[in-house]
Amino acid sequence: MDHLLTRPSSLALDSILGAPFPVLDHGFIRVIDYLGNDEAVVQAARTSYGKGTKATSEDRGLIRYLLSHRHTTPFEMCELKLHCKMPIFVARQWVRHRMANINEYSARYSILDKEYYIPETDRLQEQSTVNKQGSGDELPADVAQATRAMMQFESENAYAAYEAMIDPKVGLSRELARTVLPVNYYTQWYWKVDLHNLLHFLKLRADPHAQYEIRVYADVILKIVQMWVPLVYEAFMDYVVGSTTFSKHEMAQLHYMLGYPEEQFEIQEDSGLSDRESKEFLKKLGIQV
Amino acid sequence: MDHLLTRPSSLALDSILGAPFPVLDHGFIRVIDYLGNDEAVVQAARTSYGKGTKATSEDRGLIRYLLSHRHTTPFEMCELKLHCKMPIFVARQWVRHRMANINEYSARYSILDKEYYIPETDRLQEQSTVNKQGSGDELPADVAQATRAMMQFESENAYAAYEAMIDPKVGLSRELARTVLPVNYYTQWYWKVDLHNLLHFLKLRADPHAQYEIRVYADVILKIVQMWVPLVYEAFMDYVVGSTTFSKHEMAQLHYMLGYPEEQFEIQEDSGLSDRESKEFLKKLGIQV
Amino acid sequence: MDHLLTRPSSLALDSILGAPFPVLDHGFIRVIDYLGNDEAVVQAARTSYGKGTKATSEDRGLIRYLLSHRHTTPFEMCELKLHCKMPIFVARQWVRHRMANINEYSARYSILDKEYYIPETDRLQEQSTVNKQGSGDELPADVAQATRAMMQFESENAYAAYEAMIDPKVGLSRELARTVLPVNYYTQWYWKVDLHNLLHFLKLRADPHAQYEIRVYADVILKIVQMWVPLVYEAFMDYVVGSTTFSKHEMAQLHYMLGYPEEQFEIQEDSGLSDRESKEFLKKLGIQV
Amino acid sequence: MDHLLTRPSSLALDSILGAPFPVLDHGFIRVIDYLGNDEAVVQAARTSYGKGTKATSEDRGLIRYLLSHRHTTPFEMCELKLHCKMPIFVARQWVRHRMANINEYSARYSILDKEYYIPETDRLQEQSTVNKQGSGDELPADVAQATRAMMQFESENAYAAYEAMIDPKVGLSRELARTVLPVNYYTQWYWKVDLHNLLHFLKLRADPHAQYEIRVYADVILKIVQMWVPLVYEAFMDYVVGSTTFSKHEMAQLHYMLGYPEEQFEIQEDSGLSDRESKEFLKKLGIQV
Repeated sequence: MDHLLTRPSSLALDSILGAPFPVLDHGFIRVIDYLGNDEAVVQAARTSYGKGTKATSEDRGLIRYLLSHRHTTPFEMCELKLHCKMPIFVARQWVRHRMANINEYSARYSILDKEYYIPETDRLQEQSTVNKQGSGDELPADVAQATRAMMQFESENAYAAYEAMIDPKVGLSRELARTVLPVNYYTQWYWKVDLHNLLHFLKLRADPHAQYEIRVYADVILKIVQMWVPLVYEAFMDYVVGSTTFSKHEMAQLHYMLGYPEEQFEIQEDSGLSDRESKEFLKKLGIQV
Repeated sequence: MDHLLTRPSSLALDSILGAPFPVLDHGFIRVIDYLGNDEAVVQAARTSYGKGTKATSEDRGLIRYLLSHRHTTPFEMCELKLHCKMPIFVARQWVRHRMANINEYSARYSILDKEYYIPETDRLQEQSTVNKQGSGDELPADVAQATRAMMQFESENAYAAYEAMIDPKVGLSRELARTVLPVNYYTQWYWKVDLHNLLHFLKLRADPHAQYEIRVYADVILKIVQMWVPLVYEAFMDYVVGSTTFSKHEMAQLHYMLGYPEEQFEIQEDSGLSDRESKEFLKKLGIQV
Repeated sequence: MDHLLTRPSSLALDSILGAPFPVLDHGFIRVIDYLGNDEAVVQAARTSYGKGTKATSEDRGLIRYLLSHRHTTPFEMCELKLHCKMPIFVARQWVRHRMANINEYSARYSILDKEYYIPETDRLQEQSTVNKQGSGDELPADVAQATRAMMQFESENAYAAYEAMIDPKVGLSRELARTVLPVNYYTQWYWKVDLHNLLHFLKLRADPHAQYEIRVYADVILKIVQMWVPLVYEAFMDYVVGSTTFSKHEMAQLHYMLGYPEEQFEIQEDSGLSDRESKEFLKKLGIQV
Repeated sequence: MDHLLTRPSSLALDSILGAPFPVLDHGFIRVIDYLGNDEAVVQAARTSYGKGTKATSEDRGLIRYLLSHRHTTPFEMCELKLHCKMPIFVARQWVRHRMANINEYSARYSILDKEYYIPETDRLQEQSTVNKQGSGDELPADVAQATRAMMQFESENAYAAYEAMIDPKVGLSRELARTVLPVNYYTQWYWKVDLHNLLHFLKLRADPHAQYEIRVYADVILKIVQMWVPLVYEAFMDYVVGSTTFSKHEMAQLHYMLGYPEEQFEIQEDSGLSDRESKEFLKKLGIQV
């Protein structure tokens, strides 16, 4: 406890620091810095457990235990700092995750570049009839082309007006001139977040119900998380992304469908469940063992 | 939208404002104030949906939908303010819920009363062998009695020292004298929290894994929530407290145990599941309908 | 402590619940609900002080003491819920105040109205040469008129494209169609915040350095705060808005300019400073009394 | 923007990673990890300013500008992780700073060591008559000795009871046995916080009004901050710790005492104020230049 340390690091993440991962037509994500790694999660958890410390070889098991039992504070002990560029309407959804630090490019102070987002043709989908906030089938090819053209026209038009207003001959303040730019224009920011809140962000934004344009950013970040904290990533995919929650009534229905007696059920050999997990699983189903 | 309002209220909660609910041997919880009710949750959700607004008769359904799909922001639109008195070791667990406002009695400023917590005999349990942070079987009656006596003796002793040190003849500052008081001494605070964070607190602290001494506070608050926002309470019990989550591997195992073909499964008549919920349930099981 | 309560209220605020205060050309602020009042701040502070409680007549003094000494937690014990309508670029600044609850109208779900912000002629100002993020002199009248016309044209144009794309004949999803709308389009939300964080918002956004278009919202909220918690408002104007902070070097300079010897200084009779405040003031200047 | 990076670091902090700084009789603070440095603050600020970027030589000036104008978000872009050991009553004050991450040693899970805090003789002070929550003059030497002895006796006594109860012959659960231990017993935790919130913590806890026992921890952390981000530290000492704020009434009084006419004031040659700061200073005093 009293010897000197070196900073915990992740070789995989060190190797991509600063490199931009392209997203959408003009966006990107770059890893700027990070704090902690898989071991830092374990170390924080073991502080809580004190003398109850286990062997290092059990890191993976401990991380899986923590995540599956929603012991969230050790995951707060890691931090990721990204440089992100995305359309304003994506930034507007992103910023709703409050437990993060942001420094955004200021259009009051600086001039915005002429960079705007135009969806690919196959992304131009109809309003969903099932999901009131979602997209459904693709538009016919000709309609999609016409729609793209209209979006492009509007975006170019708006920037021409923006440029005219900030031109020294008019000299309108930037904070007002930018008000004519549409929300498909790109902005950028530094975004710093702890791993617990990052996983929460990913759970919501890498979800099929999230809008496609923020989901592609979440997908890239998921890959970054996999490089950075592979054990946490694996546990997250198994216990959160891949998990399914049943309500009280659904559990009753499940019991009915399982058609007791209980003894007919046995755990598969290749179930991927440890002994502890097998017992917990049967307990979740109300099957005594 | 432009007519005058009156504040949303809850008659049930109004009728108990200020009345102490006793907890443990000297503790209590009193409702001091609140903001919002079931309708306020619905109102906030409908702001998001805008013109997609539904009839008032569907409040219950909307609340259940919001909670089961973890749309949490509308629940942040209600607020509860409590006056709580509890042992210091309970306060130490409670305060870890950061998204709340606290004004605690200051033992730097004022003198603490001689009130300390002694567990009932049947609560004096052995260290659990299964759960390293839990309690197991009851101690034998005579051992339990002796243990209670020891706790009482220590508590009285500590207070005698406290009193001696703050006595004008010594006159030690309160901020130092109080350092000899054990963590079973009572403190009190005003605690204000929004409904979303309150439900999260209750999920963790009304859980069987929480220490008994904080669980009894959570149980009282659960009853207060039931009086205040009955529709939210019902949904919370069904979709959160009564829910069960299966990991990716557990779901695979469940599919195996369910022994497809799928067509053998049908929803019970009295399942308590609406049509939408029935479909969602089968979808969670990977059963196409 | 064990008698029944009624909810603390503010008659002045009750009388305007739901009434819209117009802001900018299409915006408004409406008070939807609130929790607490001046007395609630005092009550929370007295919980901390316990038996050191003072007479009710000293409420004003206590509130002024708390605010001037930045004892912030008692102010967190009050809460205000507003319904606000404002341009998207204003919402983007507003949302950066993270310690608040928001339910915003969703343009993924619902269709946006054709309501956009066009600045008044006298607000059409040049880019400031002093303040890189600010506005300077007014544009010449004819240039301002032309600028307004251009803004209006762009806004109308964008909405025409929006309408064309969501028209059933095209049927593009709302979440994509809205991306062509500029940030001067209006959005709306429910916003709930505690009084401490509200005062922080007002300090930054009612400040002359804030962009005019958010400042006018802050000014309206300031008036609402004055109606709601007049004692807190008065203290806030005296100790925060009206205050001035000097750095270490500035204080040294100030001492130099004050040209000691100290005894030449005496407090004015009508200084507005209480005895305690007079002493604290001289102490801040390094003048012993 | 697209070349690879290495993680920003601080050589001074790297050289002390893991080394314990002793505090009080058994406490310590160790730096476990950190993210960012002075340059990271500058980098984040320049993201906001975009093309308005300045030369690297002006880092110090920019940091001073940011801190003196309370532009706080760039400071959130650095993070510090500490391992701290302190008495429970200190931890209780510390934990009230909510914007931080904590993993604390659990006395439900593990056995607490017999380590408790006994104040040095010269710290045993009387209850202050001026400051109701503070300490005043030292106790007479013999009284102080007797007080220390009483504290020691109580602490030993409590631990003996604790040990007796967790002894296998009784076997009481740890979560109950620990309730007899006084708040002068040591606990420990990992604490992670961003630089903005850390400075806020230091402002309050390194202040003379803070209790001595937490102030000594804040003083050690101040030194760590000085090693880590020397430019931020310097600015913090000048603009926050060394600053003085005058209320509206105090400013009026100050103007009176300064006895206009204004032209009599001139800035000292060695004032330590830049040109910009000199102008801002006179402006704060209402003196036009």
